[in-house]
Amino acid sequence: MEIALKPFANLTIPEKEALRKSLREDFDRVCEKKLKLNMARGKPGKEQLDLVSGILTVLTDPKDCVSDGLDVRNYGNLSGLPEAKKLFAEILDCKPEQCFIGGSASLQLMYDLIAKAYTHGLQHSARPWSKEPVVKWLCPAPGYDRHFGISKSFGMELIPVSMTAEGPDMDLVEELVKDPAVKGIWCVPKYSNPQGIVYSQKTIARFAALRPAAPDFALMWDNAYCIHEVFGEYLPFPDILRLCAEAGNADMVYEFASTSKVTFPGAGISVMATSEANQSYLQSLITYQVISYDKVNQLRHVRYLKDKAHTIELMAKHAEILRPKFACVLDTLEKEIKPLGLASWESPKGGYFVSVNTLPGLAKRTLELCAQAGVTMTAAGATYPYGKDPADSNIRIAPSYPGLEELQQAIEIFCLCLKLAALEQEG
Amino acid sequence: MEIALKPFANLTIPEKEALRKSLREDFDRVCEKKLKLNMARGKPGKEQLDLVSGILTVLTDPKDCVSDGLDVRNYGNLSGLPEAKKLFAEILDCKPEQCFIGGSASLQLMYDLIAKAYTHGLQHSARPWSKEPVVKWLCPAPGYDRHFGISKSFGMELIPVSMTAEGPDMDLVEELVKDPAVKGIWCVPKYSNPQGIVYSQKTIARFAALRPAAPDFALMWDNAYCIHEVFGEYLPFPDILRLCAEAGNADMVYEFASTSKVTFPGAGISVMATSEANQSYLQSLITYQVISYDKVNQLRHVRYLKDKAHTIELMAKHAEILRPKFACVLDTLEKEIKPLGLASWESPKGGYFVSVNTLPGLAKRTLELCAQAGVTMTAAGATYPYGKDPADSNIRIAPSYPGLEELQQAIEIFCLCLKLAALEQEG
Repeated sequence: MEIALKPFANLTIPEKEALRKSLREDFDRVCEKKLKLNMARGKPGKEQLDLVSGILTVLTDPKDCVSDGLDVRNYGNLSGLPEAKKLFAEILDCKPEQCFIGGSASLQLMYDLIAKAYTHGLQHSARPWSKEPVVKWLCPAPGYDRHFGISKSFGMELIPVSMTAEGPDMDLVEELVKDPAVKGIWCVPKYSNPQGIVYSQKTIARFAALRPAAPDFALMWDNAYCIHEVFGEYLPFPDILRLCAEAGNADMVYEFASTSKVTFPGAGISVMATSEANQSYLQSLITYQVISYDKVNQLRHVRYLKDKAHTIELMAKHAEILRPKFACVLDTLEKEIKPLGLASWESPKGGYFVSVNTLPGLAKRTLELCAQAGVTMTAAGATYPYGKDPADSNIRIAPSYPGLEELQQAIEIFCLCLKLAALEQEG
Repeated sequence: MEIALKPFANLTIPEKEALRKSLREDFDRVCEKKLKLNMARGKPGKEQLDLVSGILTVLTDPKDCVSDGLDVRNYGNLSGLPEAKKLFAEILDCKPEQCFIGGSASLQLMYDLIAKAYTHGLQHSARPWSKEPVVKWLCPAPGYDRHFGISKSFGMELIPVSMTAEGPDMDLVEELVKDPAVKGIWCVPKYSNPQGIVYSQKTIARFAALRPAAPDFALMWDNAYCIHEVFGEYLPFPDILRLCAEAGNADMVYEFASTSKVTFPGAGISVMATSEANQSYLQSLITYQVISYDKVNQLRHVRYLKDKAHTIELMAKHAEILRPKFACVLDTLEKEIKPLGLASWESPKGGYFVSVNTLPGLAKRTLELCAQAGVTMTAAGATYPYGKDPADSNIRIAPSYPGLEELQQAIEIFCLCLKLAALEQEG
């Protein structure tokens, strides 16, 4: 297939025909295999889950179930175990009293915060958002489909904000927040979903100093990958709560994290970190919703993870498993796609994704072909508000779940499908 | 204190004075002890928690974490494990496909349902409840303070409905639901909180056949004590979902239960059972909120509880622990209060409470005195909407948490305080 090393536009018509035929034959052979490969979701693989089996036996006896003198098996402690707050505060570099410990999903804490903004309003809201004629929301894109899903589910008007190598386009953000109907923004500041971009110090400082017209503007700081390095050492990251407070914006930010990709996805613990004034306001609402989240599981996590240093050691073991998978995807793209100039991508140092931007108009068709060939991917457009990628270009690849052999097969099929889509577009 | 055996109204003035002095001396002696006793919340005692320690070690290895071929340690299965649905369906006598498995609190499932009614509307809502000029809600009283708390938190207008020995006053309920602003009712149908009343077959049938004007009327059927017998064998209870469906009201009812008083309070699993059409509608909203609740804990519960018969065996062991505590409260009331005619109470066969009705105007003062004597009780009025008991009469006693010796002390102090309050009222 050496002819493929030339960009397609420079091929002669017979060369294109020959290439199309050859790729189509490869494609048909793949389809016949009726494969079932999946690079759709950021799910840890079995090997990662097996890493943390010790958490299953960390509490085995009633006497293990005591934390700071409290029997964690009984009702009480709405905001969570002090020990769990201490662990998350150390990881996020904030204060324990700024932490509310949730259940097995930080997604739920984010959703519930927005839901309470609609039904009751946030601390500085003039009225519940359900009484506002329109609520607008900033969506750095490409971004996390489940974030956009929450906003869409509440009927917000989603405003895309483009991403730069330093994070969201802050000139645009600063301009857009002058509209008092703009009530918030979704951010994944470290190893952004899907690009793996780490917000620069400057971007973070501009966020902290934001002057939104809405008094109840919510900076939703989803620090999902706060300790999720894949290549290299743990990267320290600033405490956004402190930075916001220093800039006079103490109540603007809500930070989220969880152990979903540290221990068990959907069976871990989560945190919402925000100012003590916000905690006090929100807990006065949450007290009607829960008596407390699962404190037995909170204690399991505290005993198992111990502290930040020990948790980072565990994350290094996750990284050892993830590194060859990321390398497999990146190397194959480098080899198969780069010479053709059909797409560009970031080389993330952490997080769970590789974000590929194809030439305009190729994403949907590429993923259609992938589906035919038995490779499931996150839907094209999913990384954009309303599922609409204006350039039909962004594709999110999740390398974590499949085994290495399956992954190699899947990414090769992806490259094949991208080439086919590009040739089809050439006409 | 034999003079106390005569009702106070018949006492002569010197007799009253002598009694007051003697009771006041007893009271002062108690206060000096600076006791800290608690009969406030329906919390299982330590002995009950120790009963179920086996659940801590039921999953110890990755190979234990598989249910119907699914690795429960990873993301997925929004509505919960099929095995967990099967267990709850057997307990509630409904169908597995009618069950949504929640987190560690059924309170949260109830709150979230109401929240979604406000933000999105229920299946048959004309609009989200936040767009309604007023939402009214029926509150059988005395009832569960946390139920009323949810309604109040959303700004509903709470309408009290009196309780009879057969459940809520159905003549009144049938009348009130003719108002289309009346959107629902709270029910604890088996061993009601706080009275321990079991709704009669007739009451249940009238609920199932209700014809509310609101198309989205929600019958909130909190079957919190569905297998929580204290005295006597397990009492079978009809499947409200089937009865509603037979009466043409399939989508009217939402049934809730949890293992909070079966395994660990606040660290168990919960269920919302409702029609498949409701499930389909609600899950289309819940999918934005969670990926799934904690399936590891769901599997822990399924493996540990096994099935309904085995769960009822466990509940019989809980009952053995609870029986002497209930007997202690009931016997002491019988001995100290009954001859004086200062209060009446139900003798519940299950649930977690003894509900005492004092002569009018004595509840608040009795509990004030209890607080001074170091006995914490649920606040007077808490069992009524807005915390306002019109007769200032109802007091909820929770005998489960203290040890038997402490409980004996606490209930004696309660009786002493009630007598003192009554004597004060006599003037």
